[in-house]
Amino acid sequence: MNYSLLDSINSPADLKKLSPAELKQAALETRALITESVLKNGGHLASSLGAVEIALALHYVFDAPRDKILWDVGHQAYAHKIVTGRREAFKALRTDGGVCAFPNPAESEYDAFIAGHASTSLSAALGYCRARKLRGEDYRVAAVIGDGALTGGMAFEALNDIGADGCDVTIILNDNDMSISKNVGAMNRYFSRLRISKGYLGFKAKTKRVVSAVPLFGRGVLFLLEKSRNAVRWVAKTNKMFEQMGIRYYGPFDGNDLSNLIKVLKEARKLKGPVLVHLLTQKGCGFADAEADPAAYHGVNPAGAVGGKAFSDVVGATLCELAASDPRVCAVTAAMTDGTGLAGFAEEFPDRFFDVGIAEPHAVTAAAAMAAGGLRPYVAIYSTFLQRAYDQAVHDVALQNLPVTFLIDRAGVGGPDGATHQGVFDISYLSGIPNLAVFAPKDGEELKQMLHFSLMHPGPLAIRYPRAFIKEYGSAARVLPGKWEVIRSAEPPKKKLFKKAVKKIILAVGSRALELALKTNGADVINARSVKPLDFIFLDAAGKEEALIVTVEDGILSGGFGAAVLLYMNQKGFLENGARVVSLGLSDKFIHTCSQGKAFKDNGLTKENLQKILDD
Amino acid sequence: MNYSLLDSINSPADLKKLSPAELKQAALETRALITESVLKNGGHLASSLGAVEIALALHYVFDAPRDKILWDVGHQAYAHKIVTGRREAFKALRTDGGVCAFPNPAESEYDAFIAGHASTSLSAALGYCRARKLRGEDYRVAAVIGDGALTGGMAFEALNDIGADGCDVTIILNDNDMSISKNVGAMNRYFSRLRISKGYLGFKAKTKRVVSAVPLFGRGVLFLLEKSRNAVRWVAKTNKMFEQMGIRYYGPFDGNDLSNLIKVLKEARKLKGPVLVHLLTQKGCGFADAEADPAAYHGVNPAGAVGGKAFSDVVGATLCELAASDPRVCAVTAAMTDGTGLAGFAEEFPDRFFDVGIAEPHAVTAAAAMAAGGLRPYVAIYSTFLQRAYDQAVHDVALQNLPVTFLIDRAGVGGPDGATHQGVFDISYLSGIPNLAVFAPKDGEELKQMLHFSLMHPGPLAIRYPRAFIKEYGSAARVLPGKWEVIRSAEPPKKKLFKKAVKKIILAVGSRALELALKTNGADVINARSVKPLDFIFLDAAGKEEALIVTVEDGILSGGFGAAVLLYMNQKGFLENGARVVSLGLSDKFIHTCSQGKAFKDNGLTKENLQKILDD
Repeated sequence: MNYSLLDSINSPADLKKLSPAELKQAALETRALITESVLKNGGHLASSLGAVEIALALHYVFDAPRDKILWDVGHQAYAHKIVTGRREAFKALRTDGGVCAFPNPAESEYDAFIAGHASTSLSAALGYCRARKLRGEDYRVAAVIGDGALTGGMAFEALNDIGADGCDVTIILNDNDMSISKNVGAMNRYFSRLRISKGYLGFKAKTKRVVSAVPLFGRGVLFLLEKSRNAVRWVAKTNKMFEQMGIRYYGPFDGNDLSNLIKVLKEARKLKGPVLVHLLTQKGCGFADAEADPAAYHGVNPAGAVGGKAFSDVVGATLCELAASDPRVCAVTAAMTDGTGLAGFAEEFPDRFFDVGIAEPHAVTAAAAMAAGGLRPYVAIYSTFLQRAYDQAVHDVALQNLPVTFLIDRAGVGGPDGATHQGVFDISYLSGIPNLAVFAPKDGEELKQMLHFSLMHPGPLAIRYPRAFIKEYGSAARVLPGKWEVIRSAEPPKKKLFKKAVKKIILAVGSRALELALKTNGADVINARSVKPLDFIFLDAAGKEEALIVTVEDGILSGGFGAAVLLYMNQKGFLENGARVVSLGLSDKFIHTCSQGKAFKDNGLTKENLQKILDD
Repeated sequence: MNYSLLDSINSPADLKKLSPAELKQAALETRALITESVLKNGGHLASSLGAVEIALALHYVFDAPRDKILWDVGHQAYAHKIVTGRREAFKALRTDGGVCAFPNPAESEYDAFIAGHASTSLSAALGYCRARKLRGEDYRVAAVIGDGALTGGMAFEALNDIGADGCDVTIILNDNDMSISKNVGAMNRYFSRLRISKGYLGFKAKTKRVVSAVPLFGRGVLFLLEKSRNAVRWVAKTNKMFEQMGIRYYGPFDGNDLSNLIKVLKEARKLKGPVLVHLLTQKGCGFADAEADPAAYHGVNPAGAVGGKAFSDVVGATLCELAASDPRVCAVTAAMTDGTGLAGFAEEFPDRFFDVGIAEPHAVTAAAAMAAGGLRPYVAIYSTFLQRAYDQAVHDVALQNLPVTFLIDRAGVGGPDGATHQGVFDISYLSGIPNLAVFAPKDGEELKQMLHFSLMHPGPLAIRYPRAFIKEYGSAARVLPGKWEVIRSAEPPKKKLFKKAVKKIILAVGSRALELALKTNGADVINARSVKPLDFIFLDAAGKEEALIVTVEDGILSGGFGAAVLLYMNQKGFLENGARVVSLGLSDKFIHTCSQGKAFKDNGLTKENLQKILDD
C-alpha cells in the first residue's frame, strides 16, 4: 500500500490542513494501515476500522492534546494513534517497542487516559471537566463510547453524574450494534428502535461499496466503503432517555461519512452542557471479511500464529457435555461469547446461555441467584475483567457459599494486549475469599475433570487458565480440592560431603509453570492444581522431610500461591526445623506490552533460574 | 409499648388473616418495635421506618418463602424480618445471637438473598427468574430497590438485562428521595420531575401527622403518619425511561398508605413481564426526628455508646485545612458524606465536594481523571464498599500512577453490621497493586500527618482506619512510605540458660493492633504505619539480629501485611539464619455479627496469646 498522504500526517495539525478529498484519502490510507498492521501483529480490527472517520473528524475539529479526547475501550483508537504522530510505531503494534494496544498516557500526550477496560470514558470525561472547572482552564472534553461499553454500569453511573453536573462535554456514541459479540440488552433494543424510527432503516442497504485497488495482505480483499451522501442529513432530533437525564441528544448520524461528521462535530463542539452525538458506524467498515463477521475480526491473531486446542475450546466442549446430561448447567458471559469458547454452547443451548453485555458485576450476582434458585451457573470471564466483580464474588457468591463456578480465561501473563489486560492478580485476590476454592489445570484433560468435579461441588469454585494451546500430560488421580498430583519423581536425594540430603520439590501452578518445572532436573515436580485449599497433607510430609520447596506461578507474588505455601509452612514450624520455601512469581510491577517469554524472564521464571535455585 | 397484635404474628400467614384496621395497627406496632430496638442496639432507622408498609403489603400479597422477595440494601428490611418469625430475635438486633442487620438466607428461609451491599437486588431477581424458568417452577419474584441503590451501575446492568429478557418480575422502587445522604444525580432529578409532574406536588404538604400515644424511648417523640387518602389513586401512568427499556411502569403511589399499597401490589402481581411499581415513601416515616433529619438517623449508634474523636472526624477537619490552603484538594464520596466525616467539607467547599451516589466504580475512575487534570482528589469510601472499585483502583488509578488518595473508612473488623460489612480484605487486595502505597495510622495526629504527606506524594495512596474513637500516642518521626516508627523499646534481650538471647519485635498495623501490642511486655513495639512498602531497612536489621517478629493486623492473613513481611524475610534468607516471623490476623472465614472483641478473640488477637507467642 502506498501511504503517500498519510506519510505527511505527523500530528493533528497536519490533518487540519487537508481538503475534504484529501481527508477522505487519509481515511482510506489509515484504514489500510490498520488492516495491514493488525493482520500482521494481531489486534482489534473490526471496531478500529469502524471508528476511523470518528478519529479523523475528532482531530480535525478538536484541538488535542489541549482538548482531551477519551476513547472507551481503546481498541477503537488505532486511527487516533496513527494520526497523532505514531504512524511508524503503529506498524509495530502490540510488540515490545511498538505502540500498545490501548490508549496510554505514558505513550503519548494525545492519550488523555488509559482505556483497556470498558465503560470508563464517561467517568474520565467528567473527572477532566471537574478538573478544568476548578483549575480555571477552558479545554474541551470529548469521550467516544461504543454502544457495547454503554451497557457497563459504570457508564450509567457517570451519565447520572454528568447529567446532574451539567458540565460541557461532548459524548460520541459510536453505535455499531455490537459489543464484542453481538450487542445485547434492553438498551440495545432501544437503540435499534432509534435506528429504525429515525429513518435509518435503509442505512446499510444504501451503502455502496467500491472495490479499492489496494492489493491486500493475504487474508482478504479490502473494500473501501463510500456512503451515500443522501443517507445522512444534519438533523437534530431529541431522545427522551438521554434528555431525561439532562444530556442533549443529537442523531443518529452516519459515523463513517467523514465530511458530514466534521460538520456535526463542529456544531456539537459549540454547545454548552453535556451533549451526546449518536453515530452509526459499521464495525469492520472497509474490510469485507470483518464487515461480514465482525465478531470473528474483533480480536485478530497475528499472522502465522500456530493453532491448536486452547483451554477455552475445552471449556466450550465440556460445558456442552455437562449441559446435555444435567439440565441445571448454564453459562453466563459478559460480552465474551467467542473469547471464552462459548459460541458452541450458545448455539446448542440458547435457553441456558446468558450474555449479559459488558456487565461483570451483574453477571456474577445474577449467577449467584441462579445458583440459589437451583441452577449450576458457569461464569466465564477473563481474569482481568473479573476484577470488576471482585465485590460480587465476595458478597454475593462466597458469603452465601453458592455453587457458582468461575471460568477464568486469559489468566496469567497476557502478552500483547499489555498492562491493562494482564491476568496476574486473580490468584491473589481470590485466595483471600473464604469458602472459595481455586483450581488451575495442567492441561485440557484436567480442565475437563475439574469441570466435571465442579458439578458435584457444593460451594463456589474458580478455575483459572491461560490463553494457550494445550500440551496434554495424561491424567492421574481424581481432581479434588486440597489434593495435588505428582507429575515427576526425582531420584531420592543423595547426601553430599558436608551437605545434608535435601529433597527438592517444585510446586507448579497451571500449565505454564508446569512446563517450566519439567525443564529442570533433580526435583519432584508437583501439579499444584488445587491452588486453594493447599494440599496440607503433602506439605506436612514435605515439612517433616525438611524439603526445599520451590513454588512457581504465573501471577503476582503478593497474596499468591507461593505466599500461601510459605505462610502455612511457617505456621507449622517447618521453616524453623529446616524446610525451605522459595517463591517464584511476578514482582510488584505492572507488566507492559511484551511476549509472555519476556515477562517470565524479567521475573526470573526461567529454567536456568529455577535450576539454579534447586542446585544452590 | 404494647405489641399485642404484633405478638400474634409469627409468619406472613398470620398477617394475611388481618383486617385492614388490624394491618394498620400491625404497621404501627412494627414501627414502634423497630424504633425501640434500633435506639437500643443501633442500626438503620430511617430507611427501615419508611419501608414498613412495603414489607407488610408484600407479605400480605405475595407468598413467601415460596415467592422470592429481594431487599436491596437490607437495611430497609427490618419490618420484613419482624413479620417473618423473627420478632423476638429482632429485639436483639445486631448482637451476637440476635438477627443480623441485613437479609441473610442462613438466618431465615424468608431471606431469599443476602443484601448488605447496594444495587444487587435486580441482578438477584433476574437470576431467580432464570432459575425458575429453567427449573420449571412458578413462584413470583419481587425486588425492593431504593432510589439511592438505583444509582449503582449494576442495577442499570440488571435493568438492561431484565428489559431484554422479559421475565415476570415485580420491581418495587422505594423512592424516598434519599440514598443515605441526600440522593444525587440526574436520575434523581428525573425522579423529582416525575414526582412533581404526576400530581404529587402536594404529597408531603397533604400529609397530616397524628401524634401517637406511644410513650417513647428517651430520644424523641414517635409520630405516626397517616396519609391523606386523596393523595393516592390507582393510576397506571407510563414512564418513558423504563418503558423504553421494556419495563412496564406504574406509579407513583404513596408507599406508606398500606391499604392502597396492597391493592396496587395485588394488581402488579398479576401482570406478565417486568413491572416497576414506583412508590413514594418517607424516610424515617413515623419518627419525627428521623423524618426531619433522615441522614442523621440513617445509621444509629446503640444507646449509651461512648463518644470521642473518630478517625472520620480527623479526615473531615484535616481535609478542610488542606483545602483552605491548596485549591487542588477536593473530596469524592459515594453516598457516604456523613459516614466518612465529610459533611463539614461539603458545606465549606461545596464546589470541591462530589457525592456521586452509590457508584464506587465511577467515583474512583472520575477521581483518577480529576488527578490527571491536575487536582488532588481524596476518595472516601468504606473498606467493604471499595471492593466494588477494585478494578478501577488497579486499571485507572495505579496503572496510570495518578495521585489519588483513598480514605478507607471502617477498615478492619466491623462489628454489628455483620459479615457483609467487614473491612478485612483491603490490606490484602490493595497490597497486590503495583505503585500503590498503603498506610494505616496509629492515631488521629498521625492520620493528619498522613493526609499532609499525601498532598506531596506523586502517586496513589491508600489510608485505612477503623471506625473507632482515637487514643492519641503523641507523635514522633515524619510519615514516609517505607518508614516505621518505634513506639516502645523493650530492654535488650538477656541470654537465658540453654537459650539464645532473642530480640522480640511486634509489628503493629493501625490503632487496634498497636493498642493490643502495648498490652504485652518484653518486646519492641513498632508502629508499622507504612503497610506497603515495608520498612526494608528495619527488617534487614531485625533479620540480621535473628529477631522474633510478630505481626499483628486487623485484616485477613492471606495476602496481608504479615504475609508480606514473611515473604520478604524469607527472600532475604533471614529465616534460614534464625529469624522468625509469626503472623497474627484474621483467618480464612467470614466474620458474622459480633463485637470486635469477640472477632479478635476468635482469631487469637488477644494480649494473652500475643504474650504467649513472645514468651515461647
